[in-house]
Amino acid sequence: MDVQNNYSDFFEGTEKLLEVWFSRRDGKDENCDLRKIARANWETLLKLVKCEIISYKKNDQLDSYVLSESSMFVSKRCFILKTCGSTTLLNAVKPLLYVVQELTGFDEVLDIFYSRKNFMRPELQDKPHTSFEDEVEVLDELFEDGAAYCMGRINHDCWYLYTLNTPVGYRGVQVADQTLEVIMQDLDQGVMSIFTQEGSASARDATQKSGIDRLYPTATLDEFLFSPCGYSVNGILKGGYYFTIHITPEPHCSYVSFETNAPQDNYHDLVTTLLKMFLPGKFVMTLFANKLSVAAKGMKENCNTEFRNYNRKELQVCRFNTYDLTYALFAKAPS
Amino acid sequence: MDVQNNYSDFFEGTEKLLEVWFSRRDGKDENCDLRKIARANWETLLKLVKCEIISYKKNDQLDSYVLSESSMFVSKRCFILKTCGSTTLLNAVKPLLYVVQELTGFDEVLDIFYSRKNFMRPELQDKPHTSFEDEVEVLDELFEDGAAYCMGRINHDCWYLYTLNTPVGYRGVQVADQTLEVIMQDLDQGVMSIFTQEGSASARDATQKSGIDRLYPTATLDEFLFSPCGYSVNGILKGGYYFTIHITPEPHCSYVSFETNAPQDNYHDLVTTLLKMFLPGKFVMTLFANKLSVAAKGMKENCNTEFRNYNRKELQVCRFNTYDLTYALFAKAPS
Repeated sequence: MDVQNNYSDFFEGTEKLLEVWFSRRDGKDENCDLRKIARANWETLLKLVKCEIISYKKNDQLDSYVLSESSMFVSKRCFILKTCGSTTLLNAVKPLLYVVQELTGFDEVLDIFYSRKNFMRPELQDKPHTSFEDEVEVLDELFEDGAAYCMGRINHDCWYLYTLNTPVGYRGVQVADQTLEVIMQDLDQGVMSIFTQEGSASARDATQKSGIDRLYPTATLDEFLFSPCGYSVNGILKGGYYFTIHITPEPHCSYVSFETNAPQDNYHDLVTTLLKMFLPGKFVMTLFANKLSVAAKGMKENCNTEFRNYNRKELQVCRFNTYDLTYALFAKAPS
Repeated sequence: MDVQNNYSDFFEGTEKLLEVWFSRRDGKDENCDLRKIARANWETLLKLVKCEIISYKKNDQLDSYVLSESSMFVSKRCFILKTCGSTTLLNAVKPLLYVVQELTGFDEVLDIFYSRKNFMRPELQDKPHTSFEDEVEVLDELFEDGAAYCMGRINHDCWYLYTLNTPVGYRGVQVADQTLEVIMQDLDQGVMSIFTQEGSASARDATQKSGIDRLYPTATLDEFLFSPCGYSVNGILKGGYYFTIHITPEPHCSYVSFETNAPQDNYHDLVTTLLKMFLPGKFVMTLFANKLSVAAKGMKENCNTEFRNYNRKELQVCRFNTYDLTYALFAKAPS
């Protein structure tokens, strides 16, 4: 019976993350906008993924949705969907392309990024998410010349990526773009207890106790505390920037992800703050930056990035045609 | 019948490459030497791999064997085996560890590198070589905490590596060490015709016609021209250095590999010479260098390496605990 309890307690915090940039072949995209897509359409799409919208906020440049499993962000040209648990995110890609073409006037995918860390329990996922190979097969049917990568160790901690292999000279995303993700595991249980119904009186209470409200003081926050435990927050900032944090506190499968597209030429201080906040036993850091991004200048420094009390287990730097990517895995140094 | 001819014509040039460094736990390895292992023992080992020794040369520091499928090099502490076709290289690892322990006095594996490019026809391989996952399983049974990586695109051109994930502070290989490999495909058929019985009067003739004899003028060469086509050369140099080239000329599966451990702070000129010599349609370049190697200093420059008439499709730089690795894929630019 113990075994059954363990099974039912397990939650796969590890998110599937999809980012898609749209454009028009004729360049006339002034009147195109992904935010024209009605909430009812998003709800239909999210049914295919097995999750739903539980909260919504917006500013001039960004629509932000907290979902029953993670988050969705929609700007004029860019769609971001991040879902955890046993959601079936890739079921939404083909319908998304269809809905965008029908309702927004965009007729071209400029770039796509599908990524995730290795699942703790891949056998509990639904197809095609049980293996990256199967996920790639689904995406290869939709995109020509997609490129699939595995950063880190195939047989241990790793992080998968599918992106378009845009040919040399291809224009790609024409604005500065960068995404930092920090995926933390084996977290401090004192900290994790904040993100439970027992540990905090409300979502706002958890946000304040943990210090999340001080990460981006000017952000508009939309937070949710799940029952009996679990926490999500979307923060939206001026300029089309966001950050989002998702927390699975259960001791045997603790997982915290942080993600932002807010540009910085160096993310060292931010990551250090996150490490002090959550005290992970190990974490993966990924940073995408295209040529126009201020973060691209910091990529070389990232090759030597170290964090106090953590050993760098692995570092990989990739140059793609339009983006540079840094992947690093750190683990707590033996004390 | 055409189909059958195509099948029988196919040869998998893609090599499996194993490099193993040995030591003694007590540090007293003065009297240990892998070259104590008798030829008869190597022959027994190679039977498991399905290949045999066809030629042998040596100098003070290195024993060099040309095999029916590629090459083997043996020095005091380091064993290198490279085999192509449908050989079963991994069958030799466990017996190798046993033979080394029994006959040389070494009792510890300092490091291991198993690598290969993706096969053109993986379905024609014998187990466990039909998939990298299966190869990793075999190695994981022999080594604790081995690390498996895939550089490049999982769903296209890629290069697999299995190595020991030596913990931080682990001593590793205590001498400067570097390995450059250039794996070329889709080669010029005019050049490839040199490496056939029709195109050259002898192995030496092919070596001279192609210019291979001018790559390392002081090297002792051991070359072999196969019938009806195919070519191998081992070159041994002072200081324990070697180079080796293997050529599969058949038009629909042409493959040339170059490998050397000879140190240079920059390999750009050497690779340029190889490209002019063989005119590949695409090539993968991998460079390992440990902290003691002069090649390590060049790793940063390698991040920006370009070659005339070729587009860089992909570049990945990895920092492991004791080695840095650069992987790059280039393809001929449209003319």
